[in-house]
Amino acid sequence: MKLSQSLSQTSKTVAHDADSVNAKLLTQAGFVKKEAAGVYSYLPFGRKVLAKIKQIVREEMNAVGGEEILMPALTPLENWKKTGRDKVDIAFHPTEKTVLGWSHEEIVTPLAKTRVKSYRDLPLCVYQIQTKFRNEPRAKSGLMRGREFLMKDMYSFHATKEDFEQYYERVKAAYFKVFERVGLKSFLVKAGGGEFTENISHEFQVLTEAGEDRLKICEKCGLGWNAEMEIAKCEKCGGELIEKKGAEVGNIFDLGTKYSDAFKLNFADEKGAQRKVLMGCYGIGVSRLVATIAETCHDEKGLIWPESVSPFQIHLIVLGDDKKVLTEAEKVYEELSTKTEVLFDNRDLPAGVKFADADLIGIPLRLVVSPKTLATDSVEIKKRSAETSELVSLKNLLAKTF
Amino acid sequence: MKLSQSLSQTSKTVAHDADSVNAKLLTQAGFVKKEAAGVYSYLPFGRKVLAKIKQIVREEMNAVGGEEILMPALTPLENWKKTGRDKVDIAFHPTEKTVLGWSHEEIVTPLAKTRVKSYRDLPLCVYQIQTKFRNEPRAKSGLMRGREFLMKDMYSFHATKEDFEQYYERVKAAYFKVFERVGLKSFLVKAGGGEFTENISHEFQVLTEAGEDRLKICEKCGLGWNAEMEIAKCEKCGGELIEKKGAEVGNIFDLGTKYSDAFKLNFADEKGAQRKVLMGCYGIGVSRLVATIAETCHDEKGLIWPESVSPFQIHLIVLGDDKKVLTEAEKVYEELSTKTEVLFDNRDLPAGVKFADADLIGIPLRLVVSPKTLATDSVEIKKRSAETSELVSLKNLLAKTF
Repeated sequence: MKLSQSLSQTSKTVAHDADSVNAKLLTQAGFVKKEAAGVYSYLPFGRKVLAKIKQIVREEMNAVGGEEILMPALTPLENWKKTGRDKVDIAFHPTEKTVLGWSHEEIVTPLAKTRVKSYRDLPLCVYQIQTKFRNEPRAKSGLMRGREFLMKDMYSFHATKEDFEQYYERVKAAYFKVFERVGLKSFLVKAGGGEFTENISHEFQVLTEAGEDRLKICEKCGLGWNAEMEIAKCEKCGGELIEKKGAEVGNIFDLGTKYSDAFKLNFADEKGAQRKVLMGCYGIGVSRLVATIAETCHDEKGLIWPESVSPFQIHLIVLGDDKKVLTEAEKVYEELSTKTEVLFDNRDLPAGVKFADADLIGIPLRLVVSPKTLATDSVEIKKRSAETSELVSLKNLLAKTF
Repeated sequence: MKLSQSLSQTSKTVAHDADSVNAKLLTQAGFVKKEAAGVYSYLPFGRKVLAKIKQIVREEMNAVGGEEILMPALTPLENWKKTGRDKVDIAFHPTEKTVLGWSHEEIVTPLAKTRVKSYRDLPLCVYQIQTKFRNEPRAKSGLMRGREFLMKDMYSFHATKEDFEQYYERVKAAYFKVFERVGLKSFLVKAGGGEFTENISHEFQVLTEAGEDRLKICEKCGLGWNAEMEIAKCEKCGGELIEKKGAEVGNIFDLGTKYSDAFKLNFADEKGAQRKVLMGCYGIGVSRLVATIAETCHDEKGLIWPESVSPFQIHLIVLGDDKKVLTEAEKVYEELSTKTEVLFDNRDLPAGVKFADADLIGIPLRLVVSPKTLATDSVEIKKRSAETSELVSLKNLLAKTF
């Protein structure tokens, strides 16, 4: 993508209402634009990051046998009356009889009911990557807590507690993988079930001062507890707990039969007896991940994207306005673009501005084509996370596989 | 995907409120489930069709230089006041001060304003594939006219009328390509601008009795007019016009300066003078395409998906319960799955039921593994659109590239 032609642009000024590092950096670097409190547009750079995260989430959910579906945002109020969640504060009501989905147990359970008749139809696991709406009284912290946000929500259905528990452990492992793949170290934390269940739930937390949650983390084994839970030492290894702040990037719930009861989701067991389906639900805050990565992967100059979710792999800069140099840079851009994703800063601006913008945008690798390139047949290459650059011959660069 | 484990299942009964061929077939074949009037869930098969259509649309919009972004559904009412579209009937208002986006001129124009300062920043073209909400008084015809639906909306910004007109023609060509690639023959039809503009607009119509629009189509050159427009003979070639019904799958609008005026979207020209930006907008009904394909690509037995958008390329059926045959079928499934998308009907059901389901679901190619396969080392292969099947040796089948 040529920066001169992109909607995504850097900005020197910080929005007066940028209330967090992620809002500030993502806005300044041209990834998002705030449209209202807790409501953002994703500009080309930001949309690409979202797409990368979605793909990683999709791969890992498919790997644990999840089937992707897409449920609507506009849902009938009557469904929510059946579970008693029709009066929840955070729900938007576009009409008297509708709710904008802030979670989808009320839709997926009747959906599973059309499918599940016998034990042979279980287990079943479906997920979606879909836009959720929550009328947050205090939408804040940039993309951390939005009124409109992208979520992956998965729901599993089981005949027995053993089957559920085995599956729950598989998803737990898949979640650690997802967070690791997007460049985050996550901690498993025990918490209450909130609006979803009376059982204990597990949160996946990333330690960051920008997080809203107070945690107690075991220094020894890394397990954690929500600070509101009464606990003094690690339940597992007896280690000391230290208080930290965290951002909840995922959660997994044992729903038991709460929703199966409400919608009479039963199945016939091997003997033909009717039994209740056991359910689990598993969420990942996809847009919150964008914010969390921004909060944890940056320095004083700007963002530092992990390769796996970076909108581009190479930030190509051309310096000066010598036509021969421009032609050479165009050639490098064309050739590299056949192999990897390249952002080409072809703007007619001073080197200092271009370097500062590259640091702000945070693509993993920076390449510079300058008059020196013609003289030496080499380009300057620098990792965003490194202090120094080196020279690579054009020949080696273009032969490289990315 | 193994049919025995999928949420998508066929059903013999037709929903009592299925009001159209597409609603009936897509529901019976396990592609969608109706959640409320004009609101559907996409089950695994349907979600896959959506993904294929989205990818084709994305490729063609990228090819005309569109940059993909993602704007929110929750939009500030104040933006709509500026264009006088705040009182439009079809808008949902989740709160007094918000509108669920039913189009995005009110969001994209202020967004472009943050980017466009000078003639050097033009042209600019952005698009999104995003969920729209319209409070249709008569949501009907299945996925044809929904209250929640997926749309691709693109917006272009230009310095001169010539530049706009050139771009408009490029998008026109891209639209014909999109519809052709998803298996539809589309007609270009002149119409009024509706809520969007006072200028003439162009619709892309697919002729089908399930369509809501009455058209006059030139028998000679294929150009068309919305029936509400006063015209007797073809404006272009003088040919006779015949009346047809059509489904509007796309539309393109010359917005002129309507939205630039409202949001003061200006640019400095070569001489530094402030001028108004010219805008175009270009829509494709992504979920309506699913409905239109179902309406035009089916027979009395069920759906017949064009290869390009089919959820799978091969529908593999195993007959009987001989363990050796099942093992062979599993092997074929595993091998073919490494090369193409296979739906494997491994259910323990009679051949007649499985064949009927294959016809209903409508995957382009049907393969049958049966006891005969072991005896002859060959499988039965049949195109969904053909009457007869033939035998192919297993060796040739597995060597084939799909």
